[in-house]
Amino acid sequence: MIVSSLLTSVGINFGLCVLFFTLYSVLRKQPSNYDVYIPRLVADGKSQKRSRFNLERLLPTPGWLRRAWQPSEEELLASSGLDAVVFMRIIIFSLKVFCFAGIIGIFILLPVNFTGSQLQNVDFANLTNDSLDVFSISNVDNGSKRLWIHFSAVYIVTIFVCYLLYCEYRYVSFKRLAYFYSSEPQPHQFTILVRSIPVSAGASISDSVYSFFTEYHPSTYISHMVIRRTNKLRNLISDMRRLSSRLIHLRGEPTRTKCERCGCCGMFRRKIKVDLANHYEKKLEDLEENLRLEQSEVSLAGQEVRAAFVSFKSRYGAACAFHMQQSINPTQWVTEQAPEPRDVYWPFFSSTFMGTWISKLLVIIASIALTTLFLLPVLFVQGLANLDQLEIWFPFLESILSITFISQVVTGYFPNLILQLFLKVVPPIMKFFSSIQGYISNSDIEKSACDKVVWFTIWNVFFGNVLSGSVLNQVSILLEPKKIPGKLAVTVPAQASFFIAYVVTSGWTSVSSELVRVIPLIFSLIRKPCISSEHEFEVPSLPYHRDIPKLLFFGLLGITYFFLAPLILPFLLIYFCVGYIIYRNQFINVYAPKYETAGKFWPIVHNSMIFSLLLMHAIALGIFTLKKLPLASTSIIPLPILTLLFNAYCRKRFLPIFIAYSAETLIKKDREDRDVAAMAEFFDKMETSYQDPALLPIQYSINSDSHTSPLLYPAIYS
Amino acid sequence: MIVSSLLTSVGINFGLCVLFFTLYSVLRKQPSNYDVYIPRLVADGKSQKRSRFNLERLLPTPGWLRRAWQPSEEELLASSGLDAVVFMRIIIFSLKVFCFAGIIGIFILLPVNFTGSQLQNVDFANLTNDSLDVFSISNVDNGSKRLWIHFSAVYIVTIFVCYLLYCEYRYVSFKRLAYFYSSEPQPHQFTILVRSIPVSAGASISDSVYSFFTEYHPSTYISHMVIRRTNKLRNLISDMRRLSSRLIHLRGEPTRTKCERCGCCGMFRRKIKVDLANHYEKKLEDLEENLRLEQSEVSLAGQEVRAAFVSFKSRYGAACAFHMQQSINPTQWVTEQAPEPRDVYWPFFSSTFMGTWISKLLVIIASIALTTLFLLPVLFVQGLANLDQLEIWFPFLESILSITFISQVVTGYFPNLILQLFLKVVPPIMKFFSSIQGYISNSDIEKSACDKVVWFTIWNVFFGNVLSGSVLNQVSILLEPKKIPGKLAVTVPAQASFFIAYVVTSGWTSVSSELVRVIPLIFSLIRKPCISSEHEFEVPSLPYHRDIPKLLFFGLLGITYFFLAPLILPFLLIYFCVGYIIYRNQFINVYAPKYETAGKFWPIVHNSMIFSLLLMHAIALGIFTLKKLPLASTSIIPLPILTLLFNAYCRKRFLPIFIAYSAETLIKKDREDRDVAAMAEFFDKMETSYQDPALLPIQYSINSDSHTSPLLYPAIYS
Repeated sequence: MIVSSLLTSVGINFGLCVLFFTLYSVLRKQPSNYDVYIPRLVADGKSQKRSRFNLERLLPTPGWLRRAWQPSEEELLASSGLDAVVFMRIIIFSLKVFCFAGIIGIFILLPVNFTGSQLQNVDFANLTNDSLDVFSISNVDNGSKRLWIHFSAVYIVTIFVCYLLYCEYRYVSFKRLAYFYSSEPQPHQFTILVRSIPVSAGASISDSVYSFFTEYHPSTYISHMVIRRTNKLRNLISDMRRLSSRLIHLRGEPTRTKCERCGCCGMFRRKIKVDLANHYEKKLEDLEENLRLEQSEVSLAGQEVRAAFVSFKSRYGAACAFHMQQSINPTQWVTEQAPEPRDVYWPFFSSTFMGTWISKLLVIIASIALTTLFLLPVLFVQGLANLDQLEIWFPFLESILSITFISQVVTGYFPNLILQLFLKVVPPIMKFFSSIQGYISNSDIEKSACDKVVWFTIWNVFFGNVLSGSVLNQVSILLEPKKIPGKLAVTVPAQASFFIAYVVTSGWTSVSSELVRVIPLIFSLIRKPCISSEHEFEVPSLPYHRDIPKLLFFGLLGITYFFLAPLILPFLLIYFCVGYIIYRNQFINVYAPKYETAGKFWPIVHNSMIFSLLLMHAIALGIFTLKKLPLASTSIIPLPILTLLFNAYCRKRFLPIFIAYSAETLIKKDREDRDVAAMAEFFDKMETSYQDPALLPIQYSINSDSHTSPLLYPAIYS
Repeated sequence: MIVSSLLTSVGINFGLCVLFFTLYSVLRKQPSNYDVYIPRLVADGKSQKRSRFNLERLLPTPGWLRRAWQPSEEELLASSGLDAVVFMRIIIFSLKVFCFAGIIGIFILLPVNFTGSQLQNVDFANLTNDSLDVFSISNVDNGSKRLWIHFSAVYIVTIFVCYLLYCEYRYVSFKRLAYFYSSEPQPHQFTILVRSIPVSAGASISDSVYSFFTEYHPSTYISHMVIRRTNKLRNLISDMRRLSSRLIHLRGEPTRTKCERCGCCGMFRRKIKVDLANHYEKKLEDLEENLRLEQSEVSLAGQEVRAAFVSFKSRYGAACAFHMQQSINPTQWVTEQAPEPRDVYWPFFSSTFMGTWISKLLVIIASIALTTLFLLPVLFVQGLANLDQLEIWFPFLESILSITFISQVVTGYFPNLILQLFLKVVPPIMKFFSSIQGYISNSDIEKSACDKVVWFTIWNVFFGNVLSGSVLNQVSILLEPKKIPGKLAVTVPAQASFFIAYVVTSGWTSVSSELVRVIPLIFSLIRKPCISSEHEFEVPSLPYHRDIPKLLFFGLLGITYFFLAPLILPFLLIYFCVGYIIYRNQFINVYAPKYETAGKFWPIVHNSMIFSLLLMHAIALGIFTLKKLPLASTSIIPLPILTLLFNAYCRKRFLPIFIAYSAETLIKKDREDRDVAAMAEFFDKMETSYQDPALLPIQYSINSDSHTSPLLYPAIYS
């Protein structure tokens, strides 16, 4: 890619960003879009829906920027929870790293690369026609002593990143503990989930749980709630919801249209509607009857699953039961921490040990298959990026492609866009995989999906582009670890311009389209005429498994490319700066937390950063060999070893905090509660807090006076 | 190697075995050797030392074979503990496997190999001059359909071994639980070891432990014992022991010689002796004074280590404290299960988190270095095994080496012997490494050393011989995993005859020399004139880290070679049969358990067997490719995957049982004790059971009337 092509791409994307920002600042002021742009405020009742029209509503204003900038971290914590804070810490961390690396890269490495003569002597007069490679390490002469500057940069940045990683890990773990200490008593702190419950003949699972825990934990056990198969009920309920929503729509519309129209046509339509409404109502009542029958059947006949939530009198008691193997047979009475009640993922409850194990295995295989086979579209995109290839495949396009602007758009922008569209499907698929893997909570599912998407992105976007070749070819690289650095050293720098363009196109666009929320906006526009505006309004939550991997992948690009092609760093910095302000804005206005993991996403971030560092070291090792500086390439070897040791230390020092709370913490917290008068009431409530919502009495038919109860019904199945 | 050479080797070793057996059956009947051959019986007082002389004492008798055969497993368990039973189970397991594989190998595979014609058509008339390779898979024709027989054998034996592994794991874990249920209350069941104890300024470590556990475990905590640095004390005590033993010798001898001799020479000698004895006694008293001073200093001034044994009222209470992370900072208050008091390894107590971590790291590096650098002598031995090479190096030997018998001895026997001598040093070195790795108990040290020796043996003896080449060459194989099966397929069958000879020479000889206990016998013969016979008698314990790896390595040889060169199997079966009877004999007569891990060695056995299977699959994969049967080589691929899955299942199903007991088990056991009246007394005793023996009052000087107290002093430092 040449400089002018990059500039075109930057120009287009900068324009797009400005467009998005302007659009947003206008659109968000339209009351009809409040559901899309400030659902949190609407839900909190902080925003009146119908303000009077004035001219200011049509002018773009930057006020929202100031409002997004203002809140302190404490305020963000209070409003959006610790997970949001941790998400913002990823951006802050990246900003710190790339500011530091950027200073080194732009002011030291870039001039060194630029003044090399390995590729060509730079023609200052005609800079825009130079290849971007003149800014990369490829332009430094082989065996040049100047490469030691790159070598030092690798060392310095690694040390800096590790130091920052340590500080951040410590900071997040402090935050996590502080969050726990300041939390109110919550049911999940006192509860564990038990799976693979063995049953003796004749006894129910509930009896089995009761007798086991009264036998072995008599002093701390309070109650339990056996889980039941409610898939059928859930289907019934979702049918009812759909019907009820249609019914409300039918009943609501005439009141609006009646006053506007009259005549036989209107009369006729009204007649049909009333008939339809009656029909629906009848059907709904049937369904409700059905549901009640089904519910009582599920509750009575004991369609019990071999799993139960067991609650204890103290957090420490629950933790003891969780940490220790309960039964002589380690595959029975398998315990794990209970999620928050709102976080439970009811639909899929694999309860037996073997069931969970096998589904886990299958999911791993499926994820690996998806990760490797996904390469095909990526390779197709690679073909598109190559202009000559395109002209050979589609000769009729030759005349169009020969126009400079079009050809620049095609090479600089088009391929990434297609890749982006393909990549959009991956997080939902991975989330689906995780959901059948046997996790009990949405948070665990998203965490696991996040992990999968991180590796997916690294493998497909990074290695897919770098090692471009057949799938087998790529996998075979892994089987010859000795050759990896050499192979990477050749291929990674060659893709520098592709990834610079990737940051600009994919990064900038995705983050600013996040601001405008294109898809929810379109949905809202389509749905508006169909449903009554008061209905089915739901505050979304940020899909961490979609957005964290993006941030981490740009982090990986920055870390691996900072010494190869420092030109990537300014673009990355812009990406993270824009991301910082936009995500803050979204947390304040759009996303409400659906659950709280109290920072459990951080270890994923840490691991990904460590991997980025190791990858960077492997590339450096190869590059210095390739550049005929064997001493430097040997001297790199201690770096990955030290990084791994650092990681091992962090795993010992911080990771346990993210897995479970210590005895000290739990007992302190338990003691605080002893003096709280409301605890008896809390324990009373706790007994039913893990009731499957499908088993609660539900009323959708219009016979009831208020609609509020079904509307407030938590959207757990979505 | 040709058949006759193997036969020579078998002949020599069979002769040696018979010789060893005969020697043993005579030597064991000599009262002067009772210390060497029946120390257990002597210690138990079951054998009178001085029986009258009769002729039968000089005739070899097979009675000991019957006595070794007789005891049931329950009797062995009662007399030698569960570890001995587990050790015998390794042999029984191997016998079962190789009986099954032997039937397939000898009656099906061997004829198939033998009737092939890839190498040469067998000359039945002159069988002894044929190469052993005609019995191996190398002789089967390339692409022959007969190779499917080998393929089926690989599948059948893998399934059989996995089935047996499952049964054995279940059996041993049942035994382990049964052992725990039937055990008396023991201090280590109620105790944990706490390391990395933080101290606030001014407070002692003891205060810190007391306040922490009374704060967080008030209902279960009983007492604690802070560990102190007693290296200096231990040195003093060992000096005192040496002196005291010399003194006893000096005092004891005159009483025997006085009556036999007289005259001035005797007088003079007696005078010197009395002087010397006085001198020693003076020195001993000084040392004792020193020791007392030092002991009080250590106890008072608080040379405390940041580690303590903390005891609890119940097993469950101790387990709760062990399983949960105690402190907010996971690197402080690190808990682990306490070993039996007799099992504690006092000398080296790295107590800080970082200290333990770094020493572990260094030990790992040292072990890897030893494992890889040890190859040099192995390669030298390889050179010796090659007769032509020897003649080139030492031309003057040519005439001797041309004698058929000598050349057969050299190729068949000599190299293995040298290798054996080198290998003898390894277990003690590995044990030393493990001891500085931060383990607190002899059992953990031996377990870790056992693991190290297993990998050492596999790498050096198996891969060292198979891949013979430079160290770098070998390591580089690991970096190209794709090429491993191909490489192994070429080199492993080529070494078949070497390993057959290895089983005969190294296996048979080592196991029968174990019977005669050559080194202890020589030691005893040397020491007898120097020390009084009543003194310093100690029952040895079986060094599991030396003997388990041997058995496992022969298991690996059998599993990897059974389908390549089935001829190895009869020799292996003989080895295990002889081992069975000999080790039973030794457990009954010689070795007393020094500690009881209750079967914790079994997971090492399981892992080693799984590795053997995987190695066998890799070789099969390579062989079938090499033999031009690509379909078979592809069809092998599921086998290692299924084996790994089987292993993963076993890790989940059984391994937790070997790490800690479940809540159910502990609570049941605790309840049994509630009714036992003696528990109060037991708890009283428990407080001092983890007292460092170096801090106990010790009396060595002759002023005291009885010598029994120092003699009964447990030999914990040895």
